[in-house]
Amino acid sequence: MRIDMSDTPPIITLLTDFGTRDIYVGVVKGVILARCGAARIIDLSHEVGQGNVHEGGYLLASAWGYFPKATVHCVVIDPGVGGDRRILAAEVGGQHFVAPDNGVLTEVFNDTAPTRVVSVENQSLMIQPVSQTFHGRDIFAPAAAALASGTKLDDLGPATQSWLKLPRVEPVEQDGEVIGQVVHIDRFGNIITNIRAEDLPNEPRVQIARHAIHGLAESYQSVPRGELLAIVGSTGRLEISINQGEAAGLLAASVGDPVYVRTASE
Amino acid sequence: MRIDMSDTPPIITLLTDFGTRDIYVGVVKGVILARCGAARIIDLSHEVGQGNVHEGGYLLASAWGYFPKATVHCVVIDPGVGGDRRILAAEVGGQHFVAPDNGVLTEVFNDTAPTRVVSVENQSLMIQPVSQTFHGRDIFAPAAAALASGTKLDDLGPATQSWLKLPRVEPVEQDGEVIGQVVHIDRFGNIITNIRAEDLPNEPRVQIARHAIHGLAESYQSVPRGELLAIVGSTGRLEISINQGEAAGLLAASVGDPVYVRTASE
Amino acid sequence: MRIDMSDTPPIITLLTDFGTRDIYVGVVKGVILARCGAARIIDLSHEVGQGNVHEGGYLLASAWGYFPKATVHCVVIDPGVGGDRRILAAEVGGQHFVAPDNGVLTEVFNDTAPTRVVSVENQSLMIQPVSQTFHGRDIFAPAAAALASGTKLDDLGPATQSWLKLPRVEPVEQDGEVIGQVVHIDRFGNIITNIRAEDLPNEPRVQIARHAIHGLAESYQSVPRGELLAIVGSTGRLEISINQGEAAGLLAASVGDPVYVRTASE
Repeated sequence: MRIDMSDTPPIITLLTDFGTRDIYVGVVKGVILARCGAARIIDLSHEVGQGNVHEGGYLLASAWGYFPKATVHCVVIDPGVGGDRRILAAEVGGQHFVAPDNGVLTEVFNDTAPTRVVSVENQSLMIQPVSQTFHGRDIFAPAAAALASGTKLDDLGPATQSWLKLPRVEPVEQDGEVIGQVVHIDRFGNIITNIRAEDLPNEPRVQIARHAIHGLAESYQSVPRGELLAIVGSTGRLEISINQGEAAGLLAASVGDPVYVRTASE
Repeated sequence: MRIDMSDTPPIITLLTDFGTRDIYVGVVKGVILARCGAARIIDLSHEVGQGNVHEGGYLLASAWGYFPKATVHCVVIDPGVGGDRRILAAEVGGQHFVAPDNGVLTEVFNDTAPTRVVSVENQSLMIQPVSQTFHGRDIFAPAAAALASGTKLDDLGPATQSWLKLPRVEPVEQDGEVIGQVVHIDRFGNIITNIRAEDLPNEPRVQIARHAIHGLAESYQSVPRGELLAIVGSTGRLEISINQGEAAGLLAASVGDPVYVRTASE
Repeated sequence: MRIDMSDTPPIITLLTDFGTRDIYVGVVKGVILARCGAARIIDLSHEVGQGNVHEGGYLLASAWGYFPKATVHCVVIDPGVGGDRRILAAEVGGQHFVAPDNGVLTEVFNDTAPTRVVSVENQSLMIQPVSQTFHGRDIFAPAAAALASGTKLDDLGPATQSWLKLPRVEPVEQDGEVIGQVVHIDRFGNIITNIRAEDLPNEPRVQIARHAIHGLAESYQSVPRGELLAIVGSTGRLEISINQGEAAGLLAASVGDPVYVRTASE
């Protein structure tokens, strides 16, 4: 085996929009285990919105850094399956990614530049005949299993220097105000923004819809139960929450909504 | 150990109607690991409709062929738990199945004849006292763990030559028309029929409800976004889909609905 | 390694209220695998009601006894995250638990007295800087991985003799009647009570809301399809069910509702 995995089994994560009611995830796992019997398969999520490349990319970028070296992340959020989009395999920070060339890797690549990217084209590694509706089974799973077994990236297909990048959505600063936006709403109704902790003034006044929040909370418990708060969340970004409540529901917040931050004194 | 598993750990899949909100799946996994510490447990799905033997059988038949030799499939869709239905253990194509004798294995057995079937009756392998409401924990899980550990099929109980078979639902041909039916609707709203690719005319005209589709698409991308298409899906059967949309919702299609195929020229 | 695990890999279970739509569960698994590469991670459930310590405690108590020795149960139902509640690590019946000190371990400890409990305070085992909103990632997962790797309980923090206990909800007996309550409603609509089999009279008359059930069923199949029945369920407690139906829906039953049992002859 090419990559050092000491005596721990290789890890393959799955991030898809397949849901868990059907058998698609199970079939992908069967294909992986038939080709890499030692693989440990970890579900990142299978409930990404159908074809929602932005959501999938956000979730992937939040998670991959916590996995050990040599992990293979297999990402099948692929509304263009069967069309002419390519499938990429990439090495990034000592880990591997297999994903459609539809921008879903944009945030990962923004975090850490890939050291090598190939276009997955080696037919001999695919399940033949390749279905035109389930590349997760016929191309992605075999590619991930191959990488987990020590196959070299270059054996999957030719190197490539270009790929689809989604536009970077960064906060802007204007008249002393930071204008960001909602990038995710989690299960708890927490509203996660793209504004980094280091872009916040000392005494921020955070505005979303018609609500203003003064100051940053140290923890959810810093305010009474049921009250709104602004906090630096676990990814180092500004979040808006309710202590033991659901902020997104109360504020009718959606991904893409603007969030305004200025110093409280103004 | 009896079956060759080289140095890869034994695989046990689970297919149930337990849902994932309760602890039932977790308990089954605990029982398996307490009896076969090396087992790798893979969830096929836990969201089969309650007691829906047809749906479970369809999903199982779509998935098992992708798993490696010696995999044990543990199927607990068992509305008759505690009644007089038997529990079967079978060897099929080098893999093992543990399932209630309620027809859920019909499609698997139609695909590949079982080489041996036994009725699971060996009390010494069960958790005692056996609950009358949770045989998944007390009988199925121990039986699957035993098979994964190398216990012989015949040690589980006496051989049997008969079992419950669900009626086979095959398309019929009539006046040059193939009449099939909807067998599954997946998470994406794809409508999956029981009509095989080889039963389709060259230029098919597919009719479902009041909608007619002319010709077969090569991929979802072959038609504009939002348009209906007919395609040979990943299981080799005719499917009706919408490119990046949900066909079943638009057509109000349900499992069992008829689908008519004739040549487009007629 | 300190605890005997023969040649089977260490098992870590996860019980959370994180849901599976977000990436939180995946991140916890990444942290565990980065620190204990051999760990086998088993999902108990991630769909506990948000912050529902009672439900989580009930589910945990129903499951842990089926796992093998040396299993580590990592419980993150933690509405007080970031506040001043402690995090406990405990040894109980040869297994380990990591959980917030919010009463979620009450039922486990009622079943089997813990042999040792510590307060998790060893900063060197945590991910630094510790987020104030995601202790599952920064404290619980590293602590569970440490225990699974053989780190001693005492290396996690100082021993403690006191912790939060939820009030014990036991049935009462009054005028020859046992008055218990609904403690859980499962996916099948089964109504699970806190009344033990051994507290039932020979010929019980079970009353819930305006419905009375005479006698105990041997199995769901003992009554016609669609009929109410009372039965001793898989945890040894009285349950109220409908054969192939959903009792809780029909009876509009909720957790906490009273259930009355007397002898049928009265």
